[in-house]
Amino acid sequence: MIQFGVIGSGSWGTALAKILTQNTLLQSTNSSIYWYQRTQAAIDFIQERNHNQNYLTTAQFNTKQLILTTNLKQLINNCTHIVIAVPSAYVLNIFNQLPQNIFQNKTIISAIKGMLPNTNTLLNQYLAAQFNVPLNNYFTVMGPCHAEEVAAERLSYLTFSGAQVNACQTIANYFTTPYINTLINDDVFGVQYAAILKNIYAVGAGIAHGLDYGDNFLSVFIANAADEMASFLQKSGIKHIEVGHEQTSNTQQKTTNYAASVYLGDLLVTCYSLHSRNRTFGNMVGKGYSVKAAQLEMNMVAEGYNASKCIFLLNQQVQVNMPIAQNIYQILWHNLPPRQGFKNIEPTLI
Amino acid sequence: MIQFGVIGSGSWGTALAKILTQNTLLQSTNSSIYWYQRTQAAIDFIQERNHNQNYLTTAQFNTKQLILTTNLKQLINNCTHIVIAVPSAYVLNIFNQLPQNIFQNKTIISAIKGMLPNTNTLLNQYLAAQFNVPLNNYFTVMGPCHAEEVAAERLSYLTFSGAQVNACQTIANYFTTPYINTLINDDVFGVQYAAILKNIYAVGAGIAHGLDYGDNFLSVFIANAADEMASFLQKSGIKHIEVGHEQTSNTQQKTTNYAASVYLGDLLVTCYSLHSRNRTFGNMVGKGYSVKAAQLEMNMVAEGYNASKCIFLLNQQVQVNMPIAQNIYQILWHNLPPRQGFKNIEPTLI
Repeated sequence: MIQFGVIGSGSWGTALAKILTQNTLLQSTNSSIYWYQRTQAAIDFIQERNHNQNYLTTAQFNTKQLILTTNLKQLINNCTHIVIAVPSAYVLNIFNQLPQNIFQNKTIISAIKGMLPNTNTLLNQYLAAQFNVPLNNYFTVMGPCHAEEVAAERLSYLTFSGAQVNACQTIANYFTTPYINTLINDDVFGVQYAAILKNIYAVGAGIAHGLDYGDNFLSVFIANAADEMASFLQKSGIKHIEVGHEQTSNTQQKTTNYAASVYLGDLLVTCYSLHSRNRTFGNMVGKGYSVKAAQLEMNMVAEGYNASKCIFLLNQQVQVNMPIAQNIYQILWHNLPPRQGFKNIEPTLI
Repeated sequence: MIQFGVIGSGSWGTALAKILTQNTLLQSTNSSIYWYQRTQAAIDFIQERNHNQNYLTTAQFNTKQLILTTNLKQLINNCTHIVIAVPSAYVLNIFNQLPQNIFQNKTIISAIKGMLPNTNTLLNQYLAAQFNVPLNNYFTVMGPCHAEEVAAERLSYLTFSGAQVNACQTIANYFTTPYINTLINDDVFGVQYAAILKNIYAVGAGIAHGLDYGDNFLSVFIANAADEMASFLQKSGIKHIEVGHEQTSNTQQKTTNYAASVYLGDLLVTCYSLHSRNRTFGNMVGKGYSVKAAQLEMNMVAEGYNASKCIFLLNQQVQVNMPIAQNIYQILWHNLPPRQGFKNIEPTLI
């Protein structure tokens, strides 16, 4: 029997828990959704008030459909399908204590949009190394999807990726609701890199705005970011095959359509959103805040900050010409003046 | 000697006249710019106040650099390079009375973003049929460029297209200024179709907003519009070669990079601009106004309205699957309820 468990109680974890409770396939089996919470207080709050205390508070739950627990090990043992939606920076803390065989025969569905610190790897690479999770058991859920619009039940598209497209489709069916359309593809590495890259470009869009570039320039910048992303994904896909990494079943990654929503759509929603943390952070840097000052002011680290370093390191192997990501990395990590960084980018744009 | 003349005194014609007056190559020859105005009153106003009376009034001119005239024939006779920036709907009225040989040895630079009514052709096709203008003398200036940002001298990118890239580069050099970066390509048909298609998709983005779709959906919609545009351009490029139309020197149109600013960038700036007439028009249609009522209320016809019919007709030859443009055409021209049109589009999105 199918049993879903969600690890992650931020906005996106909450949105995914809500989606699963509203899927008719799961409803027809009377299957409750396991949902990991860090504290008993968080559980008590949801049970009393029918919504998460701090994140996506407008998403209402029927708590009869939920099995709330602070026991991560128990959750994993009791579930067949584990949805992971925690910030990439917390993954090691959360999972490192677990027994090595705990994910045996489990289906993992990752909603993580970032690389793991220190190792600079994707979640599937970490799970393979640490827990022997085979790539065939690993899937991702990605796509342009502000959690707030899930709470408001406005139509959104989620893309499920995995090495086996049939298995992928089966999983996607558990997330289909009247307001979630699901898509599938087999580019499981590419969609994860795309989700990391878009945050860098959103920081860049913010910097451009802070430097007082206008809408004409912004559109050129984002179009070129889409192109740079496609070049990186295409070449990194080939590299994965060349160097014999675990790979998807698709050996024709060259023909991937990078205009699809999981690539271009996610880039657009992130770069054009005025509420994006990455864009806000970039805007402050463009206006002259130091990176540290902007982070202090925002009381958080925008994902694009770490992402720019992750991709810089990764690109030492992939070796794609990516002047946009490269200059943003230099601005954020090596004190390149933002004005100069964009002067470097300007002549590369087509 | 190079002598530029600009035909068109709307926002975009005014912006192009301003750009030419600020180009150092032309300044170094002390070459004034001919600029056609419809009335002596318009000329008097510019000479007295140093700006256009009705359009892009913030663009200031040094009138010593301008030769203002209401005599179109004289302008063409005295110029080597003719910039045409009038609405496509007015082209026949303006040019039909001219002698058949008037454009002999003239270089035409078209800024027209639309097809000519009745004949449903591009400007170069009309000029070839009516005035025997060879494709080698015809160039376009396209790209994501709100005229307002030219007036404000914010960095923008313009793409010049023509069958001969060397000649194209020479022309582009006359439009380069500190705030205009110029690019070239040889896809002279494709860039014109792209400029027409983007208006259809901007109407669509407006309809989606009017129907209360959110940002998640909008990003999926626009990404798929980019994909649909690329499919159309690719196939129409091949068709131009197959059917032996006058063609560009590029026989490898399949490899055109449709993420470039003249394609994707222009689509983005048009679809995401809240000030776009196409988007405003679509929004009203999405909210339930009839097409006629929306046009009356706006006191104008959005370009995307006619464009949707032009592309529909053209696609009877090209035969690309384009569910977005097709449904928008049905909504605007055949009373398909907008809600139903988007229900048709939804399952086609990737």
